[in-house]
Amino acid sequence: MKAEIIAVGSEMLTPWRQDTNSLYLTEKLNEIGVTVNFKTIVGDRQKDLVSSIRNALARVDLLVIMGGLGPTQDDLTREAVAEALCITLRRDASQVAALHARAATWRTTMPQNNLKQADVLEGATVLPNANGSAPGQWLDVIFEGYRKLLMLIPGPPNECKPLFDTECMPRLRANVPARHIAKRTLRAAMIPESQADKMLAPIYTTYPDVETTILAHAGDIQLTLLCSKSNPELARQRVDELAGRLEETLEDWLYSSTGESLEQIVLYYLGLRQSTLAVAESCTGGMIAQRITSVPGSSRAFVGGAVVYSDPLKAAFAGVSADLIARHGAVSAEVAEALANGIRIRTGATLGLGITGIAGPTGATESKPVGLVYIALSDPNRTDVMDRTFRGDRQRIREFASQQALDLIRRRLM
Amino acid sequence: MKAEIIAVGSEMLTPWRQDTNSLYLTEKLNEIGVTVNFKTIVGDRQKDLVSSIRNALARVDLLVIMGGLGPTQDDLTREAVAEALCITLRRDASQVAALHARAATWRTTMPQNNLKQADVLEGATVLPNANGSAPGQWLDVIFEGYRKLLMLIPGPPNECKPLFDTECMPRLRANVPARHIAKRTLRAAMIPESQADKMLAPIYTTYPDVETTILAHAGDIQLTLLCSKSNPELARQRVDELAGRLEETLEDWLYSSTGESLEQIVLYYLGLRQSTLAVAESCTGGMIAQRITSVPGSSRAFVGGAVVYSDPLKAAFAGVSADLIARHGAVSAEVAEALANGIRIRTGATLGLGITGIAGPTGATESKPVGLVYIALSDPNRTDVMDRTFRGDRQRIREFASQQALDLIRRRLM
Repeated sequence: MKAEIIAVGSEMLTPWRQDTNSLYLTEKLNEIGVTVNFKTIVGDRQKDLVSSIRNALARVDLLVIMGGLGPTQDDLTREAVAEALCITLRRDASQVAALHARAATWRTTMPQNNLKQADVLEGATVLPNANGSAPGQWLDVIFEGYRKLLMLIPGPPNECKPLFDTECMPRLRANVPARHIAKRTLRAAMIPESQADKMLAPIYTTYPDVETTILAHAGDIQLTLLCSKSNPELARQRVDELAGRLEETLEDWLYSSTGESLEQIVLYYLGLRQSTLAVAESCTGGMIAQRITSVPGSSRAFVGGAVVYSDPLKAAFAGVSADLIARHGAVSAEVAEALANGIRIRTGATLGLGITGIAGPTGATESKPVGLVYIALSDPNRTDVMDRTFRGDRQRIREFASQQALDLIRRRLM
Repeated sequence: MKAEIIAVGSEMLTPWRQDTNSLYLTEKLNEIGVTVNFKTIVGDRQKDLVSSIRNALARVDLLVIMGGLGPTQDDLTREAVAEALCITLRRDASQVAALHARAATWRTTMPQNNLKQADVLEGATVLPNANGSAPGQWLDVIFEGYRKLLMLIPGPPNECKPLFDTECMPRLRANVPARHIAKRTLRAAMIPESQADKMLAPIYTTYPDVETTILAHAGDIQLTLLCSKSNPELARQRVDELAGRLEETLEDWLYSSTGESLEQIVLYYLGLRQSTLAVAESCTGGMIAQRITSVPGSSRAFVGGAVVYSDPLKAAFAGVSADLIARHGAVSAEVAEALANGIRIRTGATLGLGITGIAGPTGATESKPVGLVYIALSDPNRTDVMDRTFRGDRQRIREFASQQALDLIRRRLM
């Protein structure tokens, strides 16, 4: 079954505010085998609302409209649905009583405009709102010859989510043919997106019943596999079979078969090898440490490190001599190696990581462009140094560099 | 002039990912007096794309389609626009050459599927993409008797934004009737959102011609004031007058009258006072250093610091004695103070910041709850120590703590 979510509110058409409820609703709908095919964000204008509702009913079976149910004159969802479906809106006496009762509880007098929240669409079931004054509405209608399920729910997240859970989900379960969704998330590091797709598309396209989504961000690839079947075992089996083939193809680019982040995986391997890690960061300025310490319990394997932004700090915290810097430059393989070894020895960690580079936008020289990064990883027996040149702005270069550094650690521990 | 933004990509119809580019595009469109009336999110299905494009062209004058321009078989935007407008798509020889040249620069061989990025719509102007292989396209067409402006731009934020700025905005300015919008952004730190609104709403509601938006995130409040008038001086005057009154009310919570980030302001004051800063972070694990070093040129005032996640590192990098930790606990005012002094002395910076706390979810004791953070700031004459208890998950507690730390530095330097 296909769904659309319409979020109503002019504030979500400004540069500063976004609809986020729909992520939650999507998760809930997916659980019962309903896919969301469209999301629309529309302002508080009745004409725009009517056109959005009609467009939606023409292309999906299930429509959730969020917002525009409040008491102000900008709240026009009820009126728009009535116009789109050519049905009437009547003021419901029991809803009026409920509004008065609610106002009495809060010891306030109810403004007259609040009463519009008691307007109920012809044929609708009223969905009580435990956390606000505007109730939701459920409609099971015929639109242009087809049956459509339509839900009006309030916009504030603390009203929308509980009302959807308690009022809409049980009704949906009773009206939507039972489907079971199996899901897997695979993650891979530092494989270019186009290369990943070239390798993987010939495989996943042979599983048309599994919806495969590839997300890429700064050296991280996330593959989500979703399969919806009436038979839960079959759905599971299809997803697992495809996941197995994709994992094989991704080889050691793959770092997680079950959705964990690269930071989590690095910490997992550190624990497995009873190793500890320290980092000396120049160009990433604390980003690697910050990513690792974002994982609860990271202190078990991560001892800490130094943000050696200035040359004297490279000496003070990682023992990198001014002479070495003078000879090779602060951005060099030699300094990365010295940082890795120095921080490891100073901290007593099993592994030391050193990183130095040019995050930009300034700082490039003739031989060293913006984006050039040297990363070194050292243990008592061995130091690996790599150089990479990343493209993009300062933020992106730092993200790529931190991703590459974490991947280097993962590969050493694997 | 009315616009719609269509974001293309099945990943944005999952519970895990959202379109965020549209916020940026909305800001840019608003600047030239174009309002965004609709946003649509649609998956990588040609039929759905075609219906979304046709719906959009029927209701707005200006359509921006983001995403679906890449090399994979899921990238169907070009094909869908051709179908929606009943125009042809031809492979452009100069674009093919550009793709080959690009591949040569990066010393890679180009996969055959990349060539579909050279397909150009009949009558379209190709918009060069400085940061990726998929160019954008600009179309000025008649649809059902009306003139429509249509832009196809790539989805990745680092490609979408610069391409929109350099290629679309100048063309839009030449095609959209001029209007004058005045804008100001005020920012304040560590004032609770409800308190801010209670103080500020009685003022900004008396300026109905200025659209005021308040956004709050982890101790940061951003107030945006927008005023659109036919007379540019009048728009400017209204915004400045309201901004002046809000600034006065915000007192020293206000840290920027022109939209700069707290990191930028801290670096600005450090430069002004010819001071340098070093940080010793425990619970924030590098987040403060990472935030400061996200600003280009931060190396002028930020020397670096230490991520002292383990107790031995607190000793090694900031000279905090094991005895002091044993007496007061690693999370204590005394240790924060010792970290601040220690890192300042070790690095020779003018100012030293020390931070220690319990980011959770574990680590709380009977007397020290999750969210408790001690922050100390030291210069040769004086050390201030504060404790705060922040609510929320690990990420939110770390964000609040880093914000409070930066604000402490700002207040010292102000």
